Amino acid sequence: MKFATLKYQDNSYPCLVDTDKNQFWPIFELVTGFKGDMNQLVSQYAALRDRLTPVSPGHDLAAATVLAPIPRPRRNLFCVGRNYHAHARELSDTVFKDSNKKADSWPIVFTKVPECVIGPGQTVMLPGTISSQIDYEAELAIIIGTKGKNISRENALTHVFGYTIVNDVTARDIQMRHQQWDLGKSFDTFCPMGPWIVTADELDATNTRVRCWVNEQLRQDAVTTDLIFDLPTLIETCSRGITLYPGDIIATGTPAGVGMGMTPPQYLRSADVVTIQIDGIGELSNPFG
Amino acid sequence: MKFATLKYQDNSYPCLVDTDKNQFWPIFELVTGFKGDMNQLVSQYAALRDRLTPVSPGHDLAAATVLAPIPRPRRNLFCVGRNYHAHARELSDTVFKDSNKKADSWPIVFTKVPECVIGPGQTVMLPGTISSQIDYEAELAIIIGTKGKNISRENALTHVFGYTIVNDVTARDIQMRHQQWDLGKSFDTFCPMGPWIVTADELDATNTRVRCWVNEQLRQDAVTTDLIFDLPTLIETCSRGITLYPGDIIATGTPAGVGMGMTPPQYLRSADVVTIQIDGIGELSNPFG
Repeated sequence: MKFATLKYQDNSYPCLVDTDKNQFWPIFELVTGFKGDMNQLVSQYAALRDRLTPVSPGHDLAAATVLAPIPRPRRNLFCVGRNYHAHARELSDTVFKDSNKKADSWPIVFTKVPECVIGPGQTVMLPGTISSQIDYEAELAIIIGTKGKNISRENALTHVFGYTIVNDVTARDIQMRHQQWDLGKSFDTFCPMGPWIVTADELDATNTRVRCWVNEQLRQDAVTTDLIFDLPTLIETCSRGITLYPGDIIATGTPAGVGMGMTPPQYLRSADVVTIQIDGIGELSNPFG
Repeated sequence: MKFATLKYQDNSYPCLVDTDKNQFWPIFELVTGFKGDMNQLVSQYAALRDRLTPVSPGHDLAAATVLAPIPRPRRNLFCVGRNYHAHARELSDTVFKDSNKKADSWPIVFTKVPECVIGPGQTVMLPGTISSQIDYEAELAIIIGTKGKNISRENALTHVFGYTIVNDVTARDIQMRHQQWDLGKSFDTFCPMGPWIVTADELDATNTRVRCWVNEQLRQDAVTTDLIFDLPTLIETCSRGITLYPGDIIATGTPAGVGMGMTPPQYLRSADVVTIQIDGIGELSNPFG
């Protein structure tokens, strides 16, 4: 199934979406009395699942606005850095300079504040004089479905509700100068997300293609089989000592081809459009301005 | 004024506290119809302030349990690393090894998940085999009162609601091995907070003393005039490009004297008690186990 948060008749609702028929059903039409948002749908999914079957024709998807599927995550998003081999190489002299010296290797996990999430088509605000090194990062994102702590790799995927796309927009100079990355990753509007969540039963996210275009130019193109740390390992890592909750988001890292890795670096400018496609999910496109 | 979240008659309420008289008043007794938590009190403080004056005797503070003043922060806490000169020196060969090479110097800001907050007296859970390098960090914490973005140093303190104490408990090996610190700082129960918030008008937090004991031994003792980056600079830094909201928390960094800085390092063990005092606020004490 696909779930989106849609703005429809001046309100926003979590909805079941059929992208083949271009139709949608607000969850409250399928489950009488349901008044929650997407976080609550994710939390209650096991109990509600059997009732999420449309019995009547849906609404026209074209009549709704697609928002971020989780417009306001319950806490900062977990994000993974340096998780595709080719990307690790392209930034080995800059962002990952200190990482190269490490004898052992563990996932690098930082966060983005929940308020920087925006939906498909919404404009990422370039921060003017604060930074002129704004970069894109196309990423597959895991949506946690069931609570857990110290989750083993073996059980990890059973804790996944589904997957979506995020653009982990980054101010490279800010990321670097503060050493810890959270600030340079958390500017207002710096987390486009969407268009919908595809439930885990419908997508083998361990083997799917991630592509990213700036305007018409293909910049990133990789398959998730190339991840340095695979999806189960990331869930195991983030849940070690830390309880994960339904609705938690783990952005799994970006492939090679970011603007900072080009010679010379190509940062985003006003009127650029960044478009991400992940096979089996869909397309997320956002203008910068 | 001092505000605490107190458990009283099986419910928890934000309350006005008089620590001289050992009395408290739930906000709903002072403001008819108020049903919010501390985050909502902070958001509405400007409008409610004049009504927060007790006209009748309060309840006995001894009959209530003091919880964390903000039991569930609205998003991850912003936390500052390496912010006292002597602490920067004591960890210069370990945690801050890569920082020493930086030609310029900017605040290091990472985060802790909101769910790791616990109250005074609650037990910090040692994470067993996951880490044996658990350390304390006594810190003054800023509670943001009014929303703002790109806040200037000059205006920064007008955005402060008040101050409290946090213990930025850290798993040193986890902090180091993942390079980004959020995971090693975010284990369940790793953020004791309290006992109350002292409003900004009642405390000159730019010049107050921070002390920390492990059991009976004084380990940390510094004055906030020794901060490398002062409070206005930290607010300016965190709000650059990022909107701050009422209830946001900025932990301002820890003085010298952490366990990792001792020779040999002294990490926390079961039955240890860590007690933090900040002059003008109070005392936060938590057992480890």
